[in-house]
Amino acid sequence: MTDFFKGIAPIKYEGPETTNEFAFRHYDPDEVILGKRMEDHLRFAVAYWHSLAYEGGDPFGGQTFLRPWFGAGMDQAKLKADAAFELFDILGAPFYAFHDLDARPEGATFAESKRNLEEITDYLGNKQASHKTKLLWGTANMFTHRRWMSGAATNPDPEVYAYAAATVKAMLDATHKLGGQNYVLWGGREGYETLLNTDLKAERAHAGRFLQQVVEYAHKIGFKGSILIEPKPQEPSKHQYDYDVATVYSFLKDFGLEKEVKLNIEQGHAILAGHSFEHELALANALGIFGSIDMNRNDYQSGWDTDQFPNNHPEMALAYYEVLRAGGFTTGGTNFDAKLRRQSLDPADLVLSHVGGMDTCARALRAAAYLFEDGPLEAARKARYAGWEREGAKAMLAQPLEAIEKAVLENNINPQPRSGRQERLENLWNHYL
Amino acid sequence: MTDFFKGIAPIKYEGPETTNEFAFRHYDPDEVILGKRMEDHLRFAVAYWHSLAYEGGDPFGGQTFLRPWFGAGMDQAKLKADAAFELFDILGAPFYAFHDLDARPEGATFAESKRNLEEITDYLGNKQASHKTKLLWGTANMFTHRRWMSGAATNPDPEVYAYAAATVKAMLDATHKLGGQNYVLWGGREGYETLLNTDLKAERAHAGRFLQQVVEYAHKIGFKGSILIEPKPQEPSKHQYDYDVATVYSFLKDFGLEKEVKLNIEQGHAILAGHSFEHELALANALGIFGSIDMNRNDYQSGWDTDQFPNNHPEMALAYYEVLRAGGFTTGGTNFDAKLRRQSLDPADLVLSHVGGMDTCARALRAAAYLFEDGPLEAARKARYAGWEREGAKAMLAQPLEAIEKAVLENNINPQPRSGRQERLENLWNHYL
Amino acid sequence: MTDFFKGIAPIKYEGPETTNEFAFRHYDPDEVILGKRMEDHLRFAVAYWHSLAYEGGDPFGGQTFLRPWFGAGMDQAKLKADAAFELFDILGAPFYAFHDLDARPEGATFAESKRNLEEITDYLGNKQASHKTKLLWGTANMFTHRRWMSGAATNPDPEVYAYAAATVKAMLDATHKLGGQNYVLWGGREGYETLLNTDLKAERAHAGRFLQQVVEYAHKIGFKGSILIEPKPQEPSKHQYDYDVATVYSFLKDFGLEKEVKLNIEQGHAILAGHSFEHELALANALGIFGSIDMNRNDYQSGWDTDQFPNNHPEMALAYYEVLRAGGFTTGGTNFDAKLRRQSLDPADLVLSHVGGMDTCARALRAAAYLFEDGPLEAARKARYAGWEREGAKAMLAQPLEAIEKAVLENNINPQPRSGRQERLENLWNHYL
Amino acid sequence: MTDFFKGIAPIKYEGPETTNEFAFRHYDPDEVILGKRMEDHLRFAVAYWHSLAYEGGDPFGGQTFLRPWFGAGMDQAKLKADAAFELFDILGAPFYAFHDLDARPEGATFAESKRNLEEITDYLGNKQASHKTKLLWGTANMFTHRRWMSGAATNPDPEVYAYAAATVKAMLDATHKLGGQNYVLWGGREGYETLLNTDLKAERAHAGRFLQQVVEYAHKIGFKGSILIEPKPQEPSKHQYDYDVATVYSFLKDFGLEKEVKLNIEQGHAILAGHSFEHELALANALGIFGSIDMNRNDYQSGWDTDQFPNNHPEMALAYYEVLRAGGFTTGGTNFDAKLRRQSLDPADLVLSHVGGMDTCARALRAAAYLFEDGPLEAARKARYAGWEREGAKAMLAQPLEAIEKAVLENNINPQPRSGRQERLENLWNHYL
Ligand SMILES: [Co+2]
Ligand SMILES: [Co+2]
Ligand SMILES: [Co+2]
Ligand SMILES: [Co+2]
Ligand SMILES: [Co+2]
Ligand SMILES: [Co+2]
Ligand SMILES: [Co+2]
Ligand SMILES: [Co+2]
Repeated sequence: MTDFFKGIAPIKYEGPETTNEFAFRHYDPDEVILGKRMEDHLRFAVAYWHSLAYEGGDPFGGQTFLRPWFGAGMDQAKLKADAAFELFDILGAPFYAFHDLDARPEGATFAESKRNLEEITDYLGNKQASHKTKLLWGTANMFTHRRWMSGAATNPDPEVYAYAAATVKAMLDATHKLGGQNYVLWGGREGYETLLNTDLKAERAHAGRFLQQVVEYAHKIGFKGSILIEPKPQEPSKHQYDYDVATVYSFLKDFGLEKEVKLNIEQGHAILAGHSFEHELALANALGIFGSIDMNRNDYQSGWDTDQFPNNHPEMALAYYEVLRAGGFTTGGTNFDAKLRRQSLDPADLVLSHVGGMDTCARALRAAAYLFEDGPLEAARKARYAGWEREGAKAMLAQPLEAIEKAVLENNINPQPRSGRQERLENLWNHYL
Repeated sequence: MTDFFKGIAPIKYEGPETTNEFAFRHYDPDEVILGKRMEDHLRFAVAYWHSLAYEGGDPFGGQTFLRPWFGAGMDQAKLKADAAFELFDILGAPFYAFHDLDARPEGATFAESKRNLEEITDYLGNKQASHKTKLLWGTANMFTHRRWMSGAATNPDPEVYAYAAATVKAMLDATHKLGGQNYVLWGGREGYETLLNTDLKAERAHAGRFLQQVVEYAHKIGFKGSILIEPKPQEPSKHQYDYDVATVYSFLKDFGLEKEVKLNIEQGHAILAGHSFEHELALANALGIFGSIDMNRNDYQSGWDTDQFPNNHPEMALAYYEVLRAGGFTTGGTNFDAKLRRQSLDPADLVLSHVGGMDTCARALRAAAYLFEDGPLEAARKARYAGWEREGAKAMLAQPLEAIEKAVLENNINPQPRSGRQERLENLWNHYL
Repeated sequence: MTDFFKGIAPIKYEGPETTNEFAFRHYDPDEVILGKRMEDHLRFAVAYWHSLAYEGGDPFGGQTFLRPWFGAGMDQAKLKADAAFELFDILGAPFYAFHDLDARPEGATFAESKRNLEEITDYLGNKQASHKTKLLWGTANMFTHRRWMSGAATNPDPEVYAYAAATVKAMLDATHKLGGQNYVLWGGREGYETLLNTDLKAERAHAGRFLQQVVEYAHKIGFKGSILIEPKPQEPSKHQYDYDVATVYSFLKDFGLEKEVKLNIEQGHAILAGHSFEHELALANALGIFGSIDMNRNDYQSGWDTDQFPNNHPEMALAYYEVLRAGGFTTGGTNFDAKLRRQSLDPADLVLSHVGGMDTCARALRAAAYLFEDGPLEAARKARYAGWEREGAKAMLAQPLEAIEKAVLENNINPQPRSGRQERLENLWNHYL
Repeated sequence: MTDFFKGIAPIKYEGPETTNEFAFRHYDPDEVILGKRMEDHLRFAVAYWHSLAYEGGDPFGGQTFLRPWFGAGMDQAKLKADAAFELFDILGAPFYAFHDLDARPEGATFAESKRNLEEITDYLGNKQASHKTKLLWGTANMFTHRRWMSGAATNPDPEVYAYAAATVKAMLDATHKLGGQNYVLWGGREGYETLLNTDLKAERAHAGRFLQQVVEYAHKIGFKGSILIEPKPQEPSKHQYDYDVATVYSFLKDFGLEKEVKLNIEQGHAILAGHSFEHELALANALGIFGSIDMNRNDYQSGWDTDQFPNNHPEMALAYYEVLRAGGFTTGGTNFDAKLRRQSLDPADLVLSHVGGMDTCARALRAAAYLFEDGPLEAARKARYAGWEREGAKAMLAQPLEAIEKAVLENNINPQPRSGRQERLENLWNHYL
């Protein structure tokens, strides 16, 4: 046990009026909404990489955080795990998520890295056994080490492909061992810096085959969780193959994986790809590949992935509304892929950033759920498309063009536009917020 | 015959050193490159909408151009067609492209619009018969009139779907009649302004079925050209279903159309979607759906679709290199979806903007072709992936993960990165420019 | 009197729980906040151009709205004015704002345009006399007509400069006659499309001299209102001279106008310039040139000026907080430079878009005012800079560098960073929202 | 002497047709253009930070480069200096530029850091004495160490201000000792992450006073070089006070420094601020504050500062044309603030990236100079504004508005627009490229 969080007690729900900074104002885990406890709706996870491993660096500056567990050995790795579960306990977080590299020291060889991973995941498993917090997902970091600089599964060098395959196998084994409910692949280096040196077609084929191998292996070991791809358009690469939801779907279709793989959708990545978060969620739902979310927020003013904690509940409400329309989470959850600003040095900052994020999500979920339950938005949507329920409308979809033209001519069809009522629907939303 | 271009003689190739503004410096139609005449490589088309119909308006200002053919009647439509072919003659353009609305007066009813279309396309057909210029593609404008404000095939009102079906049929008939080599669909209103009032899944299904109906009809009438979709991420809509190449491909796969439909890729739309033009071309080629290009340039500093004439040959060379890698155009070509700046009032501006654009493309093609012919870039690309030709590399793709892990462990695989040589390849390019 | 808004009664405050769409939920004009009525804090104005004159066009489509007052004559202009004041009455708007061109028919000559302006402003003056609504500001439209295509005061042609001078004089006279509290200049065409044909230095000098002439004239006629510049970085021009607050300030300083001219700051323009709205407000306040605001919202996903009604009260609260820090409005106010989406066809849309916008602002103001009154954010800000109140801190600013270096060496100064507490301050904000 | 560049001989000019990758194709230092040697026009500088100190990291990955001089001691610092001058010799670079932190080990105290700086700059001075390469500019790194995380001169903590003052003094002394021709200040941390914790007005005042202190000290020690500010809008900070040229100018005016301080303008920063490079150069020239350039290129597709080597000579030609219009460099030069892509591991990459950049600049300069010398663009610009030379035009600027209105009415002035000829001027440019 560390004393890093000394003096910070577990956070309790105290309601919107509390003046206690160390309390939830909106997140009441046991509140029942749409027939389900809030905790079971939101399924919050803490991200090991941001909350335990991030040192405060940015492209123009180095470490700002001083954490007792920073360092390269197994002792520090265990101290980090101790602190992690202390944080989880304080927050009452039902889940966490991690990369291999977040938790274990990098070894000099693959074998050593693997042994380190086994040792630390045994340690984490013991932690889980005595704490509430479970593993939402595991993932392999295949972007930090210089071996990945030109890609993992899409590397021009087949040795790197092999190393990537072994790495994912090891981490999928570890995730399975820890009862992880999902396994995530994020391809930060699966892209290119310049088309000039890139065989896009070959790399795409390798990426597809790699994913098939992962799915086959997950079946073989009996992993019951979901395999998730996390789209991102760029950064660190100039262009990444998993650009956005539609792009990943096109990829899954080509490799016959659209029933096997779902998506982990991140707010900041949606923004970077020129979409809204709710768009990506709605599209994934329409395509049947919605899985989980990485909750954060990007600064609209910055062109890079800022991974901040969410703080605008009206925006988040639009996202949770789409989660509800998709039927809510099954294996997925709300993972805070969000990091402290590098000036936020204190243990209290680490705790309270999560508290604020959880409250923002809770408030957003509640508003979305009430609106969803009451139904006026869905009623308005339905009314707008009501013409398609009229006789002959759907039949037209089966007709040849010339028959439709004939009907237009004979009936002198001259459609008159009707108001889209956007501002009224926005006002409706604001009634619930 | 108009006197709009009075005093402007047909443009001839005079070589890079000429000081004659009214001459081609780089575009020599008869120059043979990679075994093909330059004209047959580039297959330039003039866009009727920008070059004949655009009045100079922008979101904050109205008409600036004074053209004798502006006006709503059939006489003006014919005068416009006369001027069009005079422009084509001056430029020696082998092709043109148009929307129904560019060429015919809008009627009070669908029937009247259709009769107008038939009359004006007969007129255009006569023009074609006596001129060199042929039709690269036709398309239906389903975005300007208020009936389309909420979409065409994706409209909440099935009457609009019907009207759209009849409109496309009419224009596909017209394109077929005129010997058009392609038929293009661009869905500027096939998207949404707000998700709040949108049934994304239903709209996507209607768009898919619509496209199937179009393809079926094209087969029925014996249209031998290509059906092309032109992706664009946004503008006029906040979000369009045909976002980019990957998105359209996912759509084609879902509706079984990936062998039936190809893409018309526009530089400016690639930029708006967060890609480079060459990326979109390379991806379309990798996916087997490359068709044609809309050549223009967007201002990187502006966030909207500026549709300017290209003037940066190094950038365009990257694009034509991908066209060459894709085997060059078959039915497709280089359509100038580019408009004069609204301050460029004079007939000479209209001519010389095209001359500059054609020269930029010619210069770009020549550089790309020489580099492609000499082969050093392809050799470098091949060398980078040479490892995949080594024994066992491809076999690994068929192995299960655990076998690959075993090999990594047994052989203590520890891949060492090799330089990507980006700057050297950029220098190589500059040697050809 | 028109019957356009038939059946829509004046909007009343009914509180947050009302289910009446035609009621204010948050805007209670008489509620006293920080010692001032809410109406006197917010000073709402309706924009004539968007709410009365906009026809629903966008770059890819024409008119969608059908308004009985559309048309070119004086009768329609008066009908428009009647409808305007009916809208103002329904909303209880204390102010409106307009361009000359919004209200009067354009004449064939300057003289005729001026006579038209005088006639319609007499008519508006009579309206004002019998209604609550007063004029917040007037402005001259020097961007729509083709004569302005290359600029107004910055036009290469001095005749256009002269026409602009006469136009502003006429509209400043009209604004003065109507008791306008401000006069606004927005330079949509005061910029360039290409540097290649632009004498940037000369144009800047002309713009500066023009502004001096306007200020001199305002003094001469005894106009007591504020002269305001509205910054915008681009659109319609590729680059505008009044880029953002800092740019306008540099310009005012160069022409000795920083005490004479203030700023009208628009949310959407702040976004287009790469800033947040609150940044621009805070900077204008720091520079002593804060005047008024154009309230709207831009779509972060679109790269152009969408001019939507605001609907995110947490964002707007950040803006009103800066307004409060600046001491609130004096002659300025909250002008809705916001337009209906072009699919929002109905009279009810026109009313309710304003109702939603007003409620969003009211809710934002209330939250900002409570936070400002309670003081915790200002206390935190003060505490962060408390070191500067310590002995010797300010004295250091008067020392030469070598003395400061000496002190650093002698005292072995080694500053230790302290947490910036960003997330905690964001949580604090959310407590008030 | 190191053997890092073993086998790479000094680069010579061999002309455009050479197939030798290790030769200049366009940069011929002795070629005389507009009466000046090309070397004296371009005044190339190599950036120590990118070319010697950068390890290949990015936000998602660590070191990729393996350089024998990496490490924390004085021996490595000297080895680095040896390699630096070997690189300068190979390139024939007339200048270099560096931050204190690039060249010296960071000490545990300010005193130790200063001693280290003195030792290494003595070493660099000896190098300079025996090599051609001189110091273009020095600068202090006040953004990497955690003490700067909340700003240097704008830090809430006056101790950091003191430390910054001492740091700049030490580095200005060092620059002076080495005969540096300029001293640059770039304020990467002089900005904010959130307005919530920021006293913008106080920080701006501190920044202004700091700059005055620096200027005063430079005068005192007889530093004859230029003091330069390098604008950047954001990154690493969310918002930086030295946003762009216009913003810095407003700041200089407020603190009476517009005659004392000039600008170092970077291509990538211009892009990030929403401008073109040539715009920023033209504006600085118009304002009389043009100093030097940081040459690089940003990827238009990425939203962060990519600092790549330039490779598009048509774009760079627009920039050098503005440099020529400003009279060329005096103390300034062309500093490559450009770094290798992190996959470009080899010594040859480091050399050839500079060779390509130098060639791109040389080619650009040559085109710009020929166009400038021939004069057609300046003639066209002059003709466009010729109206202002007509009688009465300039006199109008001295008249009151009412007199101008009178003239408009009496002469029935009705200005007719004339073509801006943008495309023709773009074609003209392409004739020179
Ligand atoms: Co993520
Ligand atoms: Co992210
Ligand atoms: Co197009
Ligand atoms: Co376009
Ligand atoms: Co405005
Ligand atoms: Co606006
Ligand atoms: Co720089
Ligand atoms: Co930079």
